[in-house]
Amino acid sequence: MSAVELFPIEGIPLIKPGDPLAAIIVKQLEHMNKRLQPDDVVVIAQKVVSKVEGRLVALASVDPSDEAKALAEVVDKDSRIVQVILDDSRAIIRSRRGLLVAEQQAGWICANAGVDRSNVQQGDDGEEYLALLPVDGDASAERIREELRVASGVAPAVIINDSHGRPWRVGTVGVCIGCAGLAPIWNQRGLHDLFGYELHSSEECIADELAAAASLLMGQSNEGQPVVIISGYQRPAHLPPAPSRSIQRTAATDAFR
Amino acid sequence: MSAVELFPIEGIPLIKPGDPLAAIIVKQLEHMNKRLQPDDVVVIAQKVVSKVEGRLVALASVDPSDEAKALAEVVDKDSRIVQVILDDSRAIIRSRRGLLVAEQQAGWICANAGVDRSNVQQGDDGEEYLALLPVDGDASAERIREELRVASGVAPAVIINDSHGRPWRVGTVGVCIGCAGLAPIWNQRGLHDLFGYELHSSEECIADELAAAASLLMGQSNEGQPVVIISGYQRPAHLPPAPSRSIQRTAATDAFR
Repeated sequence: MSAVELFPIEGIPLIKPGDPLAAIIVKQLEHMNKRLQPDDVVVIAQKVVSKVEGRLVALASVDPSDEAKALAEVVDKDSRIVQVILDDSRAIIRSRRGLLVAEQQAGWICANAGVDRSNVQQGDDGEEYLALLPVDGDASAERIREELRVASGVAPAVIINDSHGRPWRVGTVGVCIGCAGLAPIWNQRGLHDLFGYELHSSEECIADELAAAASLLMGQSNEGQPVVIISGYQRPAHLPPAPSRSIQRTAATDAFR
Repeated sequence: MSAVELFPIEGIPLIKPGDPLAAIIVKQLEHMNKRLQPDDVVVIAQKVVSKVEGRLVALASVDPSDEAKALAEVVDKDSRIVQVILDDSRAIIRSRRGLLVAEQQAGWICANAGVDRSNVQQGDDGEEYLALLPVDGDASAERIREELRVASGVAPAVIINDSHGRPWRVGTVGVCIGCAGLAPIWNQRGLHDLFGYELHSSEECIADELAAAASLLMGQSNEGQPVVIISGYQRPAHLPPAPSRSIQRTAATDAFR
């Protein structure tokens, strides 16, 4: 029986810029009497990766432009937050009261360009910080994977996930915004179903499905479980690893922007 | 440690209209020396539910209208299939060469209104059939849940999942198109994060995340594993069960149709 198990890594401390995340993961696994396996997928919440990388902006330091102020009126948000969103975006996709969907600089289309103010520790001076998405989630995932290999001798697949809202459907789901060591898209074109009919729409985004599965165990209201291990998932062995950028639909093939 | 396990039910035979799906699930679980638990989530692929319910249309029986023929030209599809899509839809959301996104009659917005020709057994006469989505996936899930209760004495949560493409991102992911016995949306508004900041965009669609997780084990190129059990997932206990219809974003709150 091909069972898949997911479990959170217990006891991960609050992460600060520069913390050795991979070493912390390996150490906490040891406390759980567990070891990484080559087939494991390590899913890490974007927020802790952004913190490790210092992708933080002090809200009080932001001086909003006239453009940000005007857009803030439209979407009914803090103009300083809107300025940070604009600074980290390539394009605004939709703006409406309460809604600001942007294509952020790494190419992810999501609410507020992924900029988040929750769970970002106030500094000793009481300042409030915003967290931005990693500059390059795939590079972040590759680096963490290499650090895990150094710390444990094993290089699992790594996924960085975030919670994104979607058109048409209520609620957020976990999605992949960075990966290393796995093929995010399982292209099944050319495969045949049980009756020999060649499959049509047969690209399955397994990286997003793994990211969503891990989100179930992370919760959103605390940082107690920002890392989830998925073990026993048999990834398509014939597919070479690829970056999560390959999940980004090109504008020319996207009917919804 | 709060681990979650997913496993497919082995040996489910090819499903035909009228087959006792719940009894088959319970019997195959017994063969695996397993029993349903009240906290389990039983995820069932839409295709087998549609087959049990006879939601099949013989392709040769379809006489396409002028409207279907014109739209088939635009999207470059078989006009008979387009007719079946139109017949099961409330509205066409986007039509382009190779792409037909519809709001199907139960309210799900997806490619081809969810109409699928793969994995639908040709009849004894060699006819080819299309499978439509269930008329009411929530009612289907409720019925299967009740049948599972009768067959096993235990009423787990039930999710019917399908693979849908998304704007902005390549590839399909499993989503929920019917559920019973669980709250599909975990509304975390009013919860506070570690630093006391009230969470903003805090509705998590756990039904879609469970559906996506199960998809990982189902594959798409065969029907060998159309039922997956998720055990150990601690659902938010304070939320009352609700239908999957509550996942459907209203047109007024949707910036992308």
